Amino acid sequence: MLPDITVFDAIAEAAAAETLPRFRMPVAIDNKHAAGFDPVTEADRAAEKAIRQIIAERFPDHGILGEEHGDVGLDRDYVWVIDPIDGTRAFISGLPVWGTLVGLYHKGKAVMGMMDQPFTGERFIARPGEAMVRRNGTTSRLSTRQGVALDQAIMMTTSPKIFSEAHEPRYKRVEDSVRLARYGCDCYAYAMVASGYIDLVVEADLKAYDVGGLIPLVEEAGGVMTTWSGGRPEMGGTIVASGSAALHETVLDLLNRN
Amino acid sequence: MLPDITVFDAIAEAAAAETLPRFRMPVAIDNKHAAGFDPVTEADRAAEKAIRQIIAERFPDHGILGEEHGDVGLDRDYVWVIDPIDGTRAFISGLPVWGTLVGLYHKGKAVMGMMDQPFTGERFIARPGEAMVRRNGTTSRLSTRQGVALDQAIMMTTSPKIFSEAHEPRYKRVEDSVRLARYGCDCYAYAMVASGYIDLVVEADLKAYDVGGLIPLVEEAGGVMTTWSGGRPEMGGTIVASGSAALHETVLDLLNRN
Repeated sequence: MLPDITVFDAIAEAAAAETLPRFRMPVAIDNKHAAGFDPVTEADRAAEKAIRQIIAERFPDHGILGEEHGDVGLDRDYVWVIDPIDGTRAFISGLPVWGTLVGLYHKGKAVMGMMDQPFTGERFIARPGEAMVRRNGTTSRLSTRQGVALDQAIMMTTSPKIFSEAHEPRYKRVEDSVRLARYGCDCYAYAMVASGYIDLVVEADLKAYDVGGLIPLVEEAGGVMTTWSGGRPEMGGTIVASGSAALHETVLDLLNRN
Repeated sequence: MLPDITVFDAIAEAAAAETLPRFRMPVAIDNKHAAGFDPVTEADRAAEKAIRQIIAERFPDHGILGEEHGDVGLDRDYVWVIDPIDGTRAFISGLPVWGTLVGLYHKGKAVMGMMDQPFTGERFIARPGEAMVRRNGTTSRLSTRQGVALDQAIMMTTSPKIFSEAHEPRYKRVEDSVRLARYGCDCYAYAMVASGYIDLVVEADLKAYDVGGLIPLVEEAGGVMTTWSGGRPEMGGTIVASGSAALHETVLDLLNRN
């Protein structure tokens, strides 16, 4: 049996209590990888701890896959996949386009998901049969944009520079075919696909915790989310999220053309 | 005598009444320039009309420079420089990083400025001697980040692809020297410099209405804003905004190195 949606509210509130007071305040920033710039903030760590505590208390037999504090029971039927702050670069730059991501996998498939943005007050939640966003006490159903051709599509990606040498020319074919390509929104971009304001996200080298909370949002809103090969996206890797099945097929064709 | 700050509030509210209901709703999008992608929304036009009406009623002897509806009396002592929606691409993509920009020039110098973001509820305002942001009834003084070296700086620009062939290699020297470069925030980036969350914005080919409302925010918060040549930024063109004079000087040196 799936948890009640109020569990996600409790998780979002516990995480926001750690993230929001540290947003737009001086925070300690580590460099997780000496080579690149992958900041981890105190907020990230404290929020993940708070989220894990709620899950461990309420669902002691569930597994947890997180970014900061190690994994627990990944072979269990239910596994929570959490990223307390997706978009840490946006976070440290003062931009309100980061989010707290929480997904629940059942036997490897993402069945519930949340993206919470506590500064703007937006909480995107999906469970089987519905995807919704709550803000200022109002709940609205999420629905992707259908019937948009590739040359009319708005695409987002974190940065055109995230792609490896092998991926870049494949990605570039998509960027060159859309109406508008925008950079720099991490999880917020997927929420905008689910909301029907943009049509595409194309990324690569993602981790499970980058996508786990987002898959149900895109799928339950009417979109499609897979790897570039068309496989299930739960483990991350190369990812495409599209507003419609037709657009998705077109993009996969482009990505995989020889 | 400069207008009371409440005039900016009235302008922001009149503009928001036109923009906010159309944000995240289907809107008519024109292509101003057949070659590029430069959308103008109904919201943009209606908001500029509302702003102009307030200015014309209260200050009939002032000039107005706007994006959509033509210019009036640009040779007058006081000229209002307005961009009802800076960041129309963000606007149509559902991202809350666009803003309503209003600057007041006195004899060619920007002396008051505002960036209003009605979705997040942030109103950044500057007048001689102070720069502030209001949100949820709280007013906070804006102050740029001082003492940040170039290799520790966070930089933003609309897109690495906005630069001409002549500008690109000069811009690239800066991007390659900073700690983190982020894309895609238009006016919001300047507000983050003024707020001390990021350190640099480097752009080119800007219009007066892209910068008029932002100059006083950056300057009164302790930052520096000039063209790449170090000249006054009021007319737009190539623009650098920096959190500190020292950082600004370093960046101008890099941009102008042979």
